[in-house]
Amino acid sequence: MEIQPVGIIKSSIGEPSLTAGNNGIERRESAEGVIARQRAQRQKISEIIIEKKWNELLDGIEGFSHLLVLYWAHLVPEESRSLKKVHPMGRKENPLTGIFATRSPARPNPVLMTVVQLISRDKNTLTVTGLDAVDGSPVVDIKPYVPETLSGDEVRIPEWMERILRESHQEETD
Amino acid sequence: MEIQPVGIIKSSIGEPSLTAGNNGIERRESAEGVIARQRAQRQKISEIIIEKKWNELLDGIEGFSHLLVLYWAHLVPEESRSLKKVHPMGRKENPLTGIFATRSPARPNPVLMTVVQLISRDKNTLTVTGLDAVDGSPVVDIKPYVPETLSGDEVRIPEWMERILRESHQEETD
Repeated sequence: MEIQPVGIIKSSIGEPSLTAGNNGIERRESAEGVIARQRAQRQKISEIIIEKKWNELLDGIEGFSHLLVLYWAHLVPEESRSLKKVHPMGRKENPLTGIFATRSPARPNPVLMTVVQLISRDKNTLTVTGLDAVDGSPVVDIKPYVPETLSGDEVRIPEWMERILRESHQEETD
Repeated sequence: MEIQPVGIIKSSIGEPSLTAGNNGIERRESAEGVIARQRAQRQKISEIIIEKKWNELLDGIEGFSHLLVLYWAHLVPEESRSLKKVHPMGRKENPLTGIFATRSPARPNPVLMTVVQLISRDKNTLTVTGLDAVDGSPVVDIKPYVPETLSGDEVRIPEWMERILRESHQEETD
């Protein structure tokens, strides 16, 4: 199954805040640094440049306020695609967890997904906020974001994931 | 960018309710039939069989009530991957819309995504409900579902998509 890139992401994010090596996830900076950086990234503007031949596929996209962007984590080295478990966020206090139960970029198929807010479309360029992809990431797909009909109480997540979400949104709710 | 299937979907859904030909999306049955079938599918149980070598990647997944399943729409013929616009749901009253603004299975990279409820995990088998994939679909990735912090009023979708959602959920709320 061959993926053809349909575009490229232009972003001020030059390198990922977490990298996956053979020993699991490694942080380039303190845990607090990672969280602060991820918060800042949510406000940042990125551009998604779709290949000109696919320009028409964007027609009607302005009707959606939010999009799902699927992109390829091109900086994940080939050998990290066979990683089995990680401490999420590279923090030892988070339990060693199977890759499919995490959002780790190192996965058998490193297709990552982010919900972004669409600011504008100009021909084959989408301007968005909230995209945490590194500059130069190949785009796999764009889909419209449609809210799930799930109510908050139906959804259960483990305690370590609750902590990550709480910390990452703390500043915004303070 | 090469995708390796990490598993396969076992489902009672033998064929897709919408198929994409060169003329756009074609329905095998009436619009009402498609809606009724999609409603019924949300209750149906499917199995996701992960390849044994990736078994460990599921460890910890029981902590999540819902998962994102990324799978390959293997029944979409190669030539439908260059389709540019469709009438969503194959209904002429829905405006002709670019593929990236729709959930059409015919897309340049036919990676589809569904939120499912996890019923149980037994070794390398996940039992789920809500998966609308056809039997035999190759699995691309499993990710934990984490609710978006977006509030309903922040999200804007076009009128045709509101109509689709309304019709598809009517029976459940009646």
